[in-house]
Amino acid sequence: MAQENNKQVKQITSMDTDFAQWYSDVCMKAELMDYSSVKGFIIYRPYGYAIWENIQNYLNTQFKKTGHDNVYMPLVIPESLFNKEKEHVEGFAPETACVTYGGSEELAEKLIIRPTSEVLFCEHYKNIVSSYRDLPKKYNQWCSVVRWEKTTRPFLRGKEFLWQEGHTIHETAKEAKEETANMLKIYKNMGKKLLAIPFVTGEKTAKEKFAGAENTYAIEALMHDGKALQSGTSHYFGQNFSKAFGIEFLNNENKKEFVYQTSWGVSTRLIGAIIMVHGDDNGLVLPPYVAPKQIVIIPIQSQKEEVQNACKTLSYKLIRKGYRVYVDNTNRTPGYKFSECEMRGIPLRIEIGPRDLENNEVTLVTRYNGVKTKYNIDAVPALIEGLLKEINDNMYNKALAHVTANTRVATTEEEFSTYINMGGYVKLCISGNEAENIIKEKYQATARVILREKPYISICPITNQKVTQVVLFARAY
Amino acid sequence: MAQENNKQVKQITSMDTDFAQWYSDVCMKAELMDYSSVKGFIIYRPYGYAIWENIQNYLNTQFKKTGHDNVYMPLVIPESLFNKEKEHVEGFAPETACVTYGGSEELAEKLIIRPTSEVLFCEHYKNIVSSYRDLPKKYNQWCSVVRWEKTTRPFLRGKEFLWQEGHTIHETAKEAKEETANMLKIYKNMGKKLLAIPFVTGEKTAKEKFAGAENTYAIEALMHDGKALQSGTSHYFGQNFSKAFGIEFLNNENKKEFVYQTSWGVSTRLIGAIIMVHGDDNGLVLPPYVAPKQIVIIPIQSQKEEVQNACKTLSYKLIRKGYRVYVDNTNRTPGYKFSECEMRGIPLRIEIGPRDLENNEVTLVTRYNGVKTKYNIDAVPALIEGLLKEINDNMYNKALAHVTANTRVATTEEEFSTYINMGGYVKLCISGNEAENIIKEKYQATARVILREKPYISICPITNQKVTQVVLFARAY
Repeated sequence: MAQENNKQVKQITSMDTDFAQWYSDVCMKAELMDYSSVKGFIIYRPYGYAIWENIQNYLNTQFKKTGHDNVYMPLVIPESLFNKEKEHVEGFAPETACVTYGGSEELAEKLIIRPTSEVLFCEHYKNIVSSYRDLPKKYNQWCSVVRWEKTTRPFLRGKEFLWQEGHTIHETAKEAKEETANMLKIYKNMGKKLLAIPFVTGEKTAKEKFAGAENTYAIEALMHDGKALQSGTSHYFGQNFSKAFGIEFLNNENKKEFVYQTSWGVSTRLIGAIIMVHGDDNGLVLPPYVAPKQIVIIPIQSQKEEVQNACKTLSYKLIRKGYRVYVDNTNRTPGYKFSECEMRGIPLRIEIGPRDLENNEVTLVTRYNGVKTKYNIDAVPALIEGLLKEINDNMYNKALAHVTANTRVATTEEEFSTYINMGGYVKLCISGNEAENIIKEKYQATARVILREKPYISICPITNQKVTQVVLFARAY
Repeated sequence: MAQENNKQVKQITSMDTDFAQWYSDVCMKAELMDYSSVKGFIIYRPYGYAIWENIQNYLNTQFKKTGHDNVYMPLVIPESLFNKEKEHVEGFAPETACVTYGGSEELAEKLIIRPTSEVLFCEHYKNIVSSYRDLPKKYNQWCSVVRWEKTTRPFLRGKEFLWQEGHTIHETAKEAKEETANMLKIYKNMGKKLLAIPFVTGEKTAKEKFAGAENTYAIEALMHDGKALQSGTSHYFGQNFSKAFGIEFLNNENKKEFVYQTSWGVSTRLIGAIIMVHGDDNGLVLPPYVAPKQIVIIPIQSQKEEVQNACKTLSYKLIRKGYRVYVDNTNRTPGYKFSECEMRGIPLRIEIGPRDLENNEVTLVTRYNGVKTKYNIDAVPALIEGLLKEINDNMYNKALAHVTANTRVATTEEEFSTYINMGGYVKLCISGNEAENIIKEKYQATARVILREKPYISICPITNQKVTQVVLFARAY
């Protein structure tokens, strides 16, 4: 059995040997995705897409509770419309894809495939809002966007990726700022409840903020290899876009005013975060609430009728309770099945064999730590709820311990250099933009978020200028 | 009140005056959609998109039951890949949109924005299938597609539209043909259960079939104005695509064989069908199971506390039972509210006023027929299930009666000419392609489906040649 196990597992590179190769191996061998014939455009296979659907279902429930409506905006943006907000176009123009032909004829105006849809929402809001009574509008859309990235990696950076983008407009700056903060909170919560990922949240520096935003806030996750991954953002636009697009309304004093705006989004990049936060050398490790299949039941000596019956009965009971369960009845050895469901990261494996059944027992194996426990078979259905919760919480705490152990405080450039080479987050007090530029150039590290902390030194060790911010740095994807 | 009612309703053109204008008015005034700055690309507003989400939920449940998996394929297709299946490319090439620039550089090869994704699925299937053990693969995707249509109308024909496209591959022709038939059945059933639309189903003629298919089957709906609307299709491809793309597998006799393939889809065109089958001069009329809001509660003399309390209590009860309900507490007159919820097609309106409350009664108004009935307020929650079912069935039967009354049998060209000018379906025995061409040219009518009936005459009245088929004709969108 151990040998068969190896046969399957051997196919993936170990993390320590080559983390990037390990990542690609997991993406392919767990059948999350496949490459298409256009570089940077991936195929989301059923197993990968089902993870995304679970994220969609979770977020749609949250969005509905908080009064957001789903809509769908066009795929393309006329170049002239795209150019209306100056900072925005400067940020995105270099990576746009353009449609120049339609129905065999050259188009009079280039159409840009949406890299993000701010300008489309602005144009629409301008048409449908006239009074404070029409506000707020809180819209969200699920779609794919295209950004012509040079270096691409499955889920992490693609020419096309799937995401949700929320776009809201409000009567007051205060309300819009609250929206920005609330959505960040929803994302952070999703980390804890659904993905078992402890996101560090905070504001982005001026250098790192979104093109056109006044403030950008982010959720950041720390990968196994010590690199950070920006996993979602929430922006406060103030009136930048509403002035550029003329989204005016009559306020309750009957005066014309421009709306205050936000946008926020997470993408299929979250799948990359799940892989690199939880995965191990045996493959994917999925947190239970986002897992397409939560439980696999594997018959040992499946030719025996009592084994087959026990598998069937237990799976029915679990399905009836709403768990996502399957019985692996394929014509392969248990060892092969074990290694396959490990590769696919199924959170909970139940082994049912004739010897255990004699004692009315089954063996449960939790994927994230490999622990095996025997339980009375009749007790299992009632146990699952607590077990899944425990797995999610333990995975979260394990990931949190990794963040804590890999967050270091630097007071000198030498310390910063040492720590950043160790991987993980490094806290540093800096003077601002110039310090960030130097750090990026010398250490290939970027500011992840500004920490809401008092500076613990007064002179920036990078520029020797006055400290203005405490910033969390990391090398990042 | 009647006056206020008129104020709102006056905004839409009556069907008899101008059906096309009535349709556009309903699309806009019911806030289903808005036009974007690119012709043929529409904005799906919250109310329109929510209808589409209900269709998605219904179909996803069916697809899951029948063992289909959702996936996501790339937005773009390299021109060389697109050109692999001859008939297919001839059918779609004239209406493709092409990406020629990415990241400010001209691309080495044009990328076609998917008008449909057969070739992408083929390319992927070729990579992941090698044995009969890998079959069947039954995938579906929800996405938007782009076809560069010259004449566009909201939901009916757009340069971009939303749809689902199922693509399956099978070991045998028999299994693939069954899949084609089963999916058609699922669509037809959706008509009855969700949309209250009686679809006529059948095979398309050779002239009307999908580019690359061996057989195309369709669901056809008859609009209020007597025109038909093709509302979904299910195709059997045989081995046309699998030979062009080399999707081979080892069968259980260890011989190489090409897979047998199907594809099938419905689109946001279904929203157009709902509007034109059920709508009336007061606006949209939504069947209850696809309606984003099923019930509206309108307080009469809303300043009275007992009215407010009764509205609140009833709405809580109905929401707890899982119905989609809202109370219209806006600062407007009941008359205005009535006409607004009529415009938006809310299936059931509950009016709660002080006079009725004295007798512990409320007034229920069903949108599709305008009938008002008083009920004891405490009896209402238990009544809704039956009432919604009754509304759906009655709307279906009303639409079916319209189809029956507008289906005529022609035996001569003169009859055909008379009947086709009356609107609706006309049954005719024809010789084949040539007859279809003449009919299209002379009468602007097209073959909707071939009927599985014995010819009732032997000589085609159009060509004077031998009859081969009984065909249902109509003018169509």
